[in-house]
Amino acid sequence: MENRQISLKHKAYLPILLFITLAHVVADLAAQEKNQVLPFSEFVEKARVAGLRREGAYDYLRQLTAIGPRLTGSPQAAAAVELMRQTFTDLGLDLVALEPVSVQRWVRGAIHDARITQSAMPGTRALAITALGGSVPTPGAGLSAPVLQVGSFEELHKRGGEAKDKIVFYNKPMDRTYLDTFQAYGETGQYRTQGAIEAAKEGALAVLVRSLTLRIDDFPHTGMLRYAPGVTRIPAAAISTNDAEFLSHLLEKEPGLVINLNLECEELPPVISANVFGQMTGVEKPKEIILLGAHLDSWDLGTGAHDDGAGCAQVLEALSLIKSLGLAPRRSVRGVLFMNEEFGGSGGRDYAAQENRKKEKHLAAMESDRGGFLPLGFSAGGNASVFNKLKTWEAYFKPLGLISGIRPGGGGVDIGPLAARGACTIGLTTDSQRYFDVHHSALDVLSSVNPRELELGAIAMAALAYFLAQEGI
Amino acid sequence: MENRQISLKHKAYLPILLFITLAHVVADLAAQEKNQVLPFSEFVEKARVAGLRREGAYDYLRQLTAIGPRLTGSPQAAAAVELMRQTFTDLGLDLVALEPVSVQRWVRGAIHDARITQSAMPGTRALAITALGGSVPTPGAGLSAPVLQVGSFEELHKRGGEAKDKIVFYNKPMDRTYLDTFQAYGETGQYRTQGAIEAAKEGALAVLVRSLTLRIDDFPHTGMLRYAPGVTRIPAAAISTNDAEFLSHLLEKEPGLVINLNLECEELPPVISANVFGQMTGVEKPKEIILLGAHLDSWDLGTGAHDDGAGCAQVLEALSLIKSLGLAPRRSVRGVLFMNEEFGGSGGRDYAAQENRKKEKHLAAMESDRGGFLPLGFSAGGNASVFNKLKTWEAYFKPLGLISGIRPGGGGVDIGPLAARGACTIGLTTDSQRYFDVHHSALDVLSSVNPRELELGAIAMAALAYFLAQEGI
Repeated sequence: MENRQISLKHKAYLPILLFITLAHVVADLAAQEKNQVLPFSEFVEKARVAGLRREGAYDYLRQLTAIGPRLTGSPQAAAAVELMRQTFTDLGLDLVALEPVSVQRWVRGAIHDARITQSAMPGTRALAITALGGSVPTPGAGLSAPVLQVGSFEELHKRGGEAKDKIVFYNKPMDRTYLDTFQAYGETGQYRTQGAIEAAKEGALAVLVRSLTLRIDDFPHTGMLRYAPGVTRIPAAAISTNDAEFLSHLLEKEPGLVINLNLECEELPPVISANVFGQMTGVEKPKEIILLGAHLDSWDLGTGAHDDGAGCAQVLEALSLIKSLGLAPRRSVRGVLFMNEEFGGSGGRDYAAQENRKKEKHLAAMESDRGGFLPLGFSAGGNASVFNKLKTWEAYFKPLGLISGIRPGGGGVDIGPLAARGACTIGLTTDSQRYFDVHHSALDVLSSVNPRELELGAIAMAALAYFLAQEGI
Repeated sequence: MENRQISLKHKAYLPILLFITLAHVVADLAAQEKNQVLPFSEFVEKARVAGLRREGAYDYLRQLTAIGPRLTGSPQAAAAVELMRQTFTDLGLDLVALEPVSVQRWVRGAIHDARITQSAMPGTRALAITALGGSVPTPGAGLSAPVLQVGSFEELHKRGGEAKDKIVFYNKPMDRTYLDTFQAYGETGQYRTQGAIEAAKEGALAVLVRSLTLRIDDFPHTGMLRYAPGVTRIPAAAISTNDAEFLSHLLEKEPGLVINLNLECEELPPVISANVFGQMTGVEKPKEIILLGAHLDSWDLGTGAHDDGAGCAQVLEALSLIKSLGLAPRRSVRGVLFMNEEFGGSGGRDYAAQENRKKEKHLAAMESDRGGFLPLGFSAGGNASVFNKLKTWEAYFKPLGLISGIRPGGGGVDIGPLAARGACTIGLTTDSQRYFDVHHSALDVLSSVNPRELELGAIAMAALAYFLAQEGI
C-alpha cells in the first residue's frame, strides 16, 4: 500500500505542471477496513441499494456541468480539473494526482453566422449553423458563394470542377435503419471529419455539413474536423438537420442561391492542461492497476453532460461506492479523468506514455464515454482467456439490468493506448437510441440525463472494478 | 376472410352507439397479396428497416397528442376516438369498428389550489398540487385545517384520533433502490388509491399525497383514487415531490401550520364512449384473433404521450408495417384502442364481454402500456406449453434489441379480462427507469418521447403479431 503525503503546490496550468497529491487515510480506520471483503453478489446488491438511493453520480454531474462547457484548453476546462482534483481529495483516496497534457486551444468566437443572401426570398434567411471544431475562420466579413449540394464524396469528385469557388454542402443523413446508432455515426462521420479536405481538393471555398443527429431539429451538432498537409484549410460548419432539409428543398428551386458564411473562430497557442486521477491503492498488489476512465473535456455548445460529464461522474461515484462500502481492494482502483478526448486525444496518449506508467502494470482499463444512458453491458477487448474470465462474471450484472452482458469489443479513445501496453480495455455499453439527439450540441445539458440511468452505469463500473481488483485477470 | 362493407352512420357517443365500418380492400391487390408470406427473420429485418426509416409511430403519436389530453369522457377523448377510427380506415384495413363503452365523467375544474395560510412565513405560500382523479371537491371556498404528516397507514392508525379534522399528508417516497420502478410504484401506489379511505376512517377532512415519481420536481402527478361504501368521501390531491419535501421540513418547525385546500373538481353523469379497433382479417382462420392493444384515454395534465399515446401509436404502426410489407396473415390481427383504462377499466371489461366476442377466439392479446421507452422484451402469461412456444421465437427479437427476451408475466389492464377467455396475454416490457418521471403529470408530452425507442416497440409488436398470426399458439 502506498500511503505517502506530498505537499501540494498548485499553480494551475503552468507549462511544466505536475502536481501530485497524496491524501492520508486515517491509519486506524484504514487498518480496520483493509480486512473487509465482500462476496461479489453481495457487493452488487449493496452498491445497487446505496447507489440508487443516494444518486451520487448525478450530484457530481450537477457540480461539474455548473462550470459550463469544458472545451479543451478553456478556462472552464481548467476549472473542471481543479474541481475534480478537489472532489477526488474529498473522497479521501490514497492518491490524487494531476499529470500534464499539452492541448490545442481553439475558440469558436462570437460570430458564427450563415445566411442565404441572394435568392427569390425577400431579405436574408439565417441558417442554424456552428463552426466545426478546429475550423479556420472565414476571411474578413465572411465569404459569399453559391452552393453545391452533394450526398457523398463520390458524387463530389464525379462533379469535379463544379465545386470550385463554391460552398460544398454535404447533405448525407445518418442512416436511421441501424439498431446501433454508433454504426450510423461511423459511416456518416467522415463528412464532418474529412469533408473540408475533400472539398478543398476540388477548389471549394468552404463546407457546410449536415449535423450528425438522427432527429430533425434546429440545433447544429459540432465535432472535430481534420485538415491535411498540402491541402488548403477551408472553413467548415455544421448545419442543423432542419435547415439542411430546408436548404436542400430551396436548392431544388433556386440552384444559384448564394450563402454568406461568417465564422470568427480562432486557433490560439497550445496550453498545458491535465489528466486528473484518484486512486484507492491496492492493499496486496498496489502496482497492479484497474483503471476507470472518462474524459473531462467537452464540446462548447452544451455543458457536455452526457459527453462525457456522465462518464466522469460515474468514475467518481464508482470509487465513492467502493469506499463507502468500507472495502479495500487487493489491487489499485484508479479513476482517471482524461483531458482532450474531443480535440485530438492527447490526454490518453500522454497518460500511457508517462514515465510513471513504467512502474505500474495496468491489468484492465474501463471507459464510460457513451453517455449516461441505460447501461446494457460491457464490451471487452483482450484475448480469449481474458474475455472468458470476464464472461464468468456476467450473471452478477443482471440485477443491475445489464442484460446484454459482456460482449467482444473494447473501450474508448482514451484507454486505447493502454491496450498496446497489455491492458484489457473495456467499454461501458449504453442504450444508443438517444445519444445522437444531444451529442455535441446545445442539448447536451444536465436536464437530458436521467439520474437512475446514470447511477446504474456507475454501480456497474464499481462492481466490475471491484471484481477485477480482487481477482485480477 | 371477411370483406364486407357496412354503411357508417356516425353520430358519435349516443347512448346506444355501435357502428362498424368494414373497409373494402381492392380485390385484385388483395388476391395478389394474400399469397405472400415472409420467413420470420426476414420479417424482422424488413420491418426494422422500414420502421426505423419512416418513424411512423411517432407521426401517429404527433397527431394523437395534438388533440390534447384525452381524459375519459371528455370531448378530447371523443375526438381521439374519431381520429383513430379515421386512421384505421386510412390504413385500408379489412374491418374498422367502434364498440360502446360506458365511462365515468369527472372534471378537474379550474381551481386546484393549496396554500399554507397560517405559519410564521409572511403571506401565503402556494403548493404545487392537483386533484387525484375522482376526488370530490372541497366545500365552498375550500377547507382550512392543520396537517398530520404520516409515512404509512400503520403510522396513521397508530396515531388514531390525531387525524381528526386534519389534512392527512402521506409523505412516503417511492423506493429508489429497486431496479424495476414498477415495483416501487406497486408498493407506494396504495397511498394514492387508498389514502382517502384510510384517512376518512380516522376523521380527516382531506388528504395530500406525495406524488408518485422518483424525481424531485415541481410537477404533481395525478392518478385514480378509490372511495369505499360507508366511508366519507374526502377530497384528495397529489403534491409535487419538491413541495412534499418543503412541507415536511416546514412541519418540523411549525407543526401547527394550516393549509387551505380548494378543489373545484366535479363528477358528471356517465357518458358512452368507445373502444376503437381495426383488423387485418386472417386469410385462413379469420375468427382466430391476435389482439394488439393499448388504451386511448389519458390523464388530463399532459397529453398522455407515453401513457398511453405511445401504445396506441405502436398498435397503429404495427398494423401499418404488416400491411406495408404486403402480407396477409393467416389469422386475424386486430388492433384495439381501449377507452377508460385510467378511470376504472370499463373498456377492457366491455370489450371482453361484448356479444361479438362469442363468435371469435382470441389466441393471444398483447398490450403496450409501459410508455414509449426502449423495448426490452415481452412478458407472457399462459401455460407452460404456450410460454415455451413463445420462447422459441426469442432469438428473432435480438436484432431489435429486445435483449431480455420473453419472460413470464402477463399483459396490461385492458387485456386482463381476455385471459379468463383463454387468451395468452402478453405485455411489451420497456426500460422502466424514466417512466415515472413523466407518468400522470404535465411532463407526459410528445417531447418526452424518443422516436426510435417508440418505433422499436412498434416493430417488435408487429413481428410477434405476425408470428402468432402465422403459427398460432
